[in-house]
Amino acid sequence: MTTAFIGLGRMGTAMATRLIAAGYDLILYNRTQEKLAPLIALGARGASSIAEAVGAADFVLTMLADDSALKAVVEGPEGLLARMRPGAIHITMGTHDVATIRALAQAHTAAGLALVVAPVLGRPEAVEAGRLGVIAAGEARAVEQCMPVLEALGRRVFRAGDDPGGASAMKLANNFLLACAIEAMGEAFALIEKSGVDAEVFHDMITDGLFASPAYNTYARIIADKAYDKVGFTVALALKDINLALAAGSVAGVPMPSANICRDRLIGASAHGDSQRDWAAMALDQARASGLA
Amino acid sequence: MTTAFIGLGRMGTAMATRLIAAGYDLILYNRTQEKLAPLIALGARGASSIAEAVGAADFVLTMLADDSALKAVVEGPEGLLARMRPGAIHITMGTHDVATIRALAQAHTAAGLALVVAPVLGRPEAVEAGRLGVIAAGEARAVEQCMPVLEALGRRVFRAGDDPGGASAMKLANNFLLACAIEAMGEAFALIEKSGVDAEVFHDMITDGLFASPAYNTYARIIADKAYDKVGFTVALALKDINLALAAGSVAGVPMPSANICRDRLIGASAHGDSQRDWAAMALDQARASGLA
Amino acid sequence: MTTAFIGLGRMGTAMATRLIAAGYDLILYNRTQEKLAPLIALGARGASSIAEAVGAADFVLTMLADDSALKAVVEGPEGLLARMRPGAIHITMGTHDVATIRALAQAHTAAGLALVVAPVLGRPEAVEAGRLGVIAAGEARAVEQCMPVLEALGRRVFRAGDDPGGASAMKLANNFLLACAIEAMGEAFALIEKSGVDAEVFHDMITDGLFASPAYNTYARIIADKAYDKVGFTVALALKDINLALAAGSVAGVPMPSANICRDRLIGASAHGDSQRDWAAMALDQARASGLA
Amino acid sequence: MTTAFIGLGRMGTAMATRLIAAGYDLILYNRTQEKLAPLIALGARGASSIAEAVGAADFVLTMLADDSALKAVVEGPEGLLARMRPGAIHITMGTHDVATIRALAQAHTAAGLALVVAPVLGRPEAVEAGRLGVIAAGEARAVEQCMPVLEALGRRVFRAGDDPGGASAMKLANNFLLACAIEAMGEAFALIEKSGVDAEVFHDMITDGLFASPAYNTYARIIADKAYDKVGFTVALALKDINLALAAGSVAGVPMPSANICRDRLIGASAHGDSQRDWAAMALDQARASGLA
Repeated sequence: MTTAFIGLGRMGTAMATRLIAAGYDLILYNRTQEKLAPLIALGARGASSIAEAVGAADFVLTMLADDSALKAVVEGPEGLLARMRPGAIHITMGTHDVATIRALAQAHTAAGLALVVAPVLGRPEAVEAGRLGVIAAGEARAVEQCMPVLEALGRRVFRAGDDPGGASAMKLANNFLLACAIEAMGEAFALIEKSGVDAEVFHDMITDGLFASPAYNTYARIIADKAYDKVGFTVALALKDINLALAAGSVAGVPMPSANICRDRLIGASAHGDSQRDWAAMALDQARASGLA
Repeated sequence: MTTAFIGLGRMGTAMATRLIAAGYDLILYNRTQEKLAPLIALGARGASSIAEAVGAADFVLTMLADDSALKAVVEGPEGLLARMRPGAIHITMGTHDVATIRALAQAHTAAGLALVVAPVLGRPEAVEAGRLGVIAAGEARAVEQCMPVLEALGRRVFRAGDDPGGASAMKLANNFLLACAIEAMGEAFALIEKSGVDAEVFHDMITDGLFASPAYNTYARIIADKAYDKVGFTVALALKDINLALAAGSVAGVPMPSANICRDRLIGASAHGDSQRDWAAMALDQARASGLA
Repeated sequence: MTTAFIGLGRMGTAMATRLIAAGYDLILYNRTQEKLAPLIALGARGASSIAEAVGAADFVLTMLADDSALKAVVEGPEGLLARMRPGAIHITMGTHDVATIRALAQAHTAAGLALVVAPVLGRPEAVEAGRLGVIAAGEARAVEQCMPVLEALGRRVFRAGDDPGGASAMKLANNFLLACAIEAMGEAFALIEKSGVDAEVFHDMITDGLFASPAYNTYARIIADKAYDKVGFTVALALKDINLALAAGSVAGVPMPSANICRDRLIGASAHGDSQRDWAAMALDQARASGLA
Repeated sequence: MTTAFIGLGRMGTAMATRLIAAGYDLILYNRTQEKLAPLIALGARGASSIAEAVGAADFVLTMLADDSALKAVVEGPEGLLARMRPGAIHITMGTHDVATIRALAQAHTAAGLALVVAPVLGRPEAVEAGRLGVIAAGEARAVEQCMPVLEALGRRVFRAGDDPGGASAMKLANNFLLACAIEAMGEAFALIEKSGVDAEVFHDMITDGLFASPAYNTYARIIADKAYDKVGFTVALALKDINLALAAGSVAGVPMPSANICRDRLIGASAHGDSQRDWAAMALDQARASGLA
């Protein structure tokens, strides 16, 4: 059984590394070839074209930055739809637009292929530590066939049903929830600071009780320290994701007022030159709006 | 040393019970006297007037439902300001308006009394289990004197500084954070449901990883089950608290857009007859806005 | 027939002047007596107490800055409820809280008096030019009796029904609509400026066609000129009114998301030191949020 | 001088009719050819392909429904960029995305063509009555050359500068202002109705004074009558435009909180089955949120 992997950025590399360690025979393709060397050193094979990578693969995994990168790999005479062998399964693991995913799924079906949408929860460090969460949606038999590779990648697979768009919606809802938590903390810290209370006391209260969790522990620390230059996820990328969440809401017919608040914060942060800082800089934009920064 | 306790609702009763068990000699007053019987059975004394309760007390604890109940106890010829003995300390533990608290603190000082503001984090069950959090603010020496009784009440005391209003702001910020988490989950569950994914899968994802905490575990469960009639905290009370948080923001000069969203949800829930349901019914109002309910 | 007038600020003075010119025999009271001299010079009588002013009056008009000023005049042993003669009518013309007005109306009824609520639309210049609009609500017979004096004050009387609170709601809704128009223009001008278009062209487009009206003509000019120091109505007063509009929404069970946006702008403007500038400074707060100011 | 016109929907037909009446020698193209007959009867010529229509034209006007229709006409081997004669000017008059317009403008320049962006203010009836407003932006010399045809189309041309995106921003800001006015009226009417006041009285107040203008007169009438089935502009089209306004804000770095409110209303209306009703149904969605509908 051959597995192709396309898209070897930081996250893709961490995932491919894990699969190689699990014994997978990987054939890799990346637009910039030099990214492949470390993985080839671990035993994977490199391909110089998408066609070469996927022509004989049973599973093709893609981990791409955005919809246009995904479409560039899927469509056209040299793309997956034209070059994968009939009956093979494409597992796409990035964060993508719900409508785009649904359209791509139809195109796969028309081409005699299956699309399993499997966005992941966690950063490269989570992959390395075996703590990655994986969401999976698509035609049930295809998802079933993918389970071994998905389980090899992480700690737990959340089965989101038959509609591939559902997996995208799950991932976007997760990032949206996180954005809302950051925004709420930003507002609360501004209130606390302007009410004359030491931010550290508020930090302790949040992380001690009701909200003690990775999400709040991480971001309460960053906001209390105003450490917006230790970048885990940029304002610019967060704005892309919150726009995708809002688009998912529009497609589903769900007004998402909290997402609007987050989007405005991210636009405000960008307008003040913070687009490459950590997205916790939403709290900085709130501080500015409060006359604090 | 004598300690008076005024306001024996469910929460006050749990707190008084704990103090009695810790060996405190309590003298109690409540507007409706029958609430006192179980506590008297445990060894506390009952008083038939505020004056009788507080005349000889070193500490007077109040646990009252709102600002007007607090003012009714504090002000007037039969109130705390007129009847507490000079040098005694009033510890008020309810959730109150920042501006009201600051005005009351000044009135206490003018009357030769100290006001320590010590709102609590947790429900009666948390008191019984010794898991109550306590926030404390006020003049440092007074707070120091109160520490034994505050520590007897709960698990941990968060010192919020000299300004009594700061403790109110902390408590309101805590409740505000919780409201935002509920609102965000409400929006996310609506998105998930209208995107065709089983709510239970989304529930598992939230409570499994990034957000695993009492706040999210509790409310994700209620929302997934649509169990709005198991009432922990009503829409009506939540609306009161979110209005207090917004007022705190206004006093401090902090716009709180997420608080506005929560307030509109609570008003919307009330407008649809849900004011006495659990405040997780914010998610029901979101579902309605999404054409789901 | 005697008519008393209490509250001779700028607006009250303009209204009293107009009534004197129309032949009304006015008896005046103001907390600061010196305000009365110019009106006495025009033929009105001054009173040194509320009791003296209203004891013999058929109609008592009040034009007061806020709810607490109104309550101070109405309640207590020297207030209107105690001192007006039975059967007389109190016409209150300021901008007040809906719930406060409803409670005061009940108190008037209990005292054998009628309360007609008649807030006005326009500034002192509108009074002088005879262009004032008047809203009127209250028990129909009482309103009917007041019509001559209300018609003497302005150009047109809008009859808002039997519930005195309805007139307050009308006035607050009017000011809310104006706030929304200013907010929308603030956002639009920020978009236009950051899109590289001359603000003056946008000003012309707005005031030329669809929106050509006093509201848009006035505020598009101020915003295009950034003339926030020519103060017609302060940020602080606007914040009071928008809070009253939100309170009216809460009482009626109406979420008002646009009012929230306006309130946040006004709080933001205050937080940046603009509370005494014209409320068009909402647009300045929007410019700041956009990285423009 | 030959002028081509592509896109003969209702609006395009009204505009072409006006140009024919003004003596213009028009050559027309529309995807569905039957739309051309009435205009050919008036003296215009029909073309069966874009190439035939534009090959000899000095000016090519396009009036297309959305970005994808515009791109379909502009791009590709049979599109304007390939088929217009060097030095000719493309005047595009629809409502388009700012970023799309800027990208198209660059492509025109690269092809030796000029793009003038000239969106219009008004409906077909306004065209017929000669009351159309026209916004125009683009390279100054090109706009100057277009002025006769733009002036023939309407009442007034607003010159929005050199950046073609500026004209789109102006048009979107105009529609955004109108959406905000409708939303504010929706909230105000809900407040008035739930406060027990007759909507007709509120209608009269708005349209009589501060807000007397085509925008408020038109929509206050529709909302007071709940006449959402007399469709001037659908919820679906309005949602498209408000999304374009938000995208313009994002590109320019301008948070637009009022646009978010409008977008949520339009999504809410769609979620309740109102996507083909008049966009004044935003007020219906507000009524629903208030427990009224």
